[in-house]
Amino acid sequence: MFSKESPIGVFDSGIGGLSVLKQFIRFLPSESYIYLGDTARVPYGNKSSRIVEQYTAESIEFLLSKGVKIIITACNTVSAVALETARKYAGNIDVIGMIEAAAGAALRASRNNKIGIIGTRATISSNAYENRIRDISSQSQIDVFSKACPMFVPIVEEGMLRHPASKLIAEEYLLPLKENNIDTIVLGCTHYPLLSHLISEIIPEAALIDSGEHAAVFALRMLAEKGLLIDPSDEFIQKPDIQFFVTDLPANFYEQARNFLGFEINEPNIIHLGKEHS
Amino acid sequence: MFSKESPIGVFDSGIGGLSVLKQFIRFLPSESYIYLGDTARVPYGNKSSRIVEQYTAESIEFLLSKGVKIIITACNTVSAVALETARKYAGNIDVIGMIEAAAGAALRASRNNKIGIIGTRATISSNAYENRIRDISSQSQIDVFSKACPMFVPIVEEGMLRHPASKLIAEEYLLPLKENNIDTIVLGCTHYPLLSHLISEIIPEAALIDSGEHAAVFALRMLAEKGLLIDPSDEFIQKPDIQFFVTDLPANFYEQARNFLGFEINEPNIIHLGKEHS
Repeated sequence: MFSKESPIGVFDSGIGGLSVLKQFIRFLPSESYIYLGDTARVPYGNKSSRIVEQYTAESIEFLLSKGVKIIITACNTVSAVALETARKYAGNIDVIGMIEAAAGAALRASRNNKIGIIGTRATISSNAYENRIRDISSQSQIDVFSKACPMFVPIVEEGMLRHPASKLIAEEYLLPLKENNIDTIVLGCTHYPLLSHLISEIIPEAALIDSGEHAAVFALRMLAEKGLLIDPSDEFIQKPDIQFFVTDLPANFYEQARNFLGFEINEPNIIHLGKEHS
Repeated sequence: MFSKESPIGVFDSGIGGLSVLKQFIRFLPSESYIYLGDTARVPYGNKSSRIVEQYTAESIEFLLSKGVKIIITACNTVSAVALETARKYAGNIDVIGMIEAAAGAALRASRNNKIGIIGTRATISSNAYENRIRDISSQSQIDVFSKACPMFVPIVEEGMLRHPASKLIAEEYLLPLKENNIDTIVLGCTHYPLLSHLISEIIPEAALIDSGEHAAVFALRMLAEKGLLIDPSDEFIQKPDIQFFVTDLPANFYEQARNFLGFEINEPNIIHLGKEHS
């Protein structure tokens, strides 16, 4: 059973989903959150659908055991290939992915109907954003240009946000999109909002669509309409109420978490997902 | 009487409030909007409270006559000096100003509790943002640094967004804030989001708080909780449903409107507010 006091569950393959959690905290600071990062099995991007679905099911079950009132799949790979699995396991708990709200936002933001999508190889080859955009815009002529940017995740994770090499790499990925005259880019990976400055430097004419931001407002609306938001506190909340769960504690966990969230985090709980070895 | 199908009313002293309307359309594209710009009496910034209150009352009455379900005072001057007047005239219709949501967002965004506020002279000398921030954060030590940036409105209105002179002027306004080590800046004027690139160039370490964005999410939540949002259309909406009303049609109206909103607008209706001359 859940109520308006229940926490919001956010699930990611790793630490990047904290950039999505950050957007939720911006607009819903009084809520409490359970963040689950499957850091022992990250990344999901190159794994088969069958395995991603299995891992997703295990994560959903964990979040349900914590009594969440809604689940956010912050991982774009999960959102692209395992959203139906997540919804099946979540039962009467709503599951919000990264793709639906961002696809609509990109369509509305574009004036010339030329939209760029950037993401990991797995997200781009799933065509999930492109398919969703084409579904919504059935009447209109839309040009979608997709580009996998596989170096962006390691650039963010190595803290090379302002390194000259990062600009060279970003130019190589983004100039083909610029030549196609796109006016809107979907940041289709949890890590990419940290590279916004670089992307805007190379394509200043493009509006950047942050999938996490749009998922947050989408979830806010859904919870509000169901009367499931807790009353905003009158007291100023400096430190949001978040419990962190991870399946492994990587070496640079705290530094990464601070980069994605913008503040220092509490010690995470280390849990096991999947079958126990006997 | 109003219902979920009623329009959202947005009121500004001029055209700048279209930057606020833009934020509403981002998150609530299926709603219909009435935009009222008092272009015959703009700007309000140097007028007395008595006159701003009178003009506000007249605008509220006009929006009520259009059957709106909520009213947004997009003008920071009105939000700072005439919000109570607006609420008195609006009766049972909620009125959302620019200051409340943005003040809370600034507090949450800041990690070092050093917050910059920029706005017109009128907004800055009203201390409305600073007072609100201090109200919310009663327990904490917060340093607020306010700076009037009177040239920013004409820079935006003259389309000098990337002119080298604009950077020189922006540096003069913003370097004192930078020296105070602020990590968050409230864009306390409808025109300033168009200068975000310039502000971030000079103070890249600061998070920018867009008052219109936070007012939009605040209103979204309020309407959703009252069951007053219309059901999102399944059809993709390229052109939002907006009726424009102005008290004068300035020479460069269409160009300005496109800059603030991001797309071409329909012909506005020209109306008269205040006492008729006989």
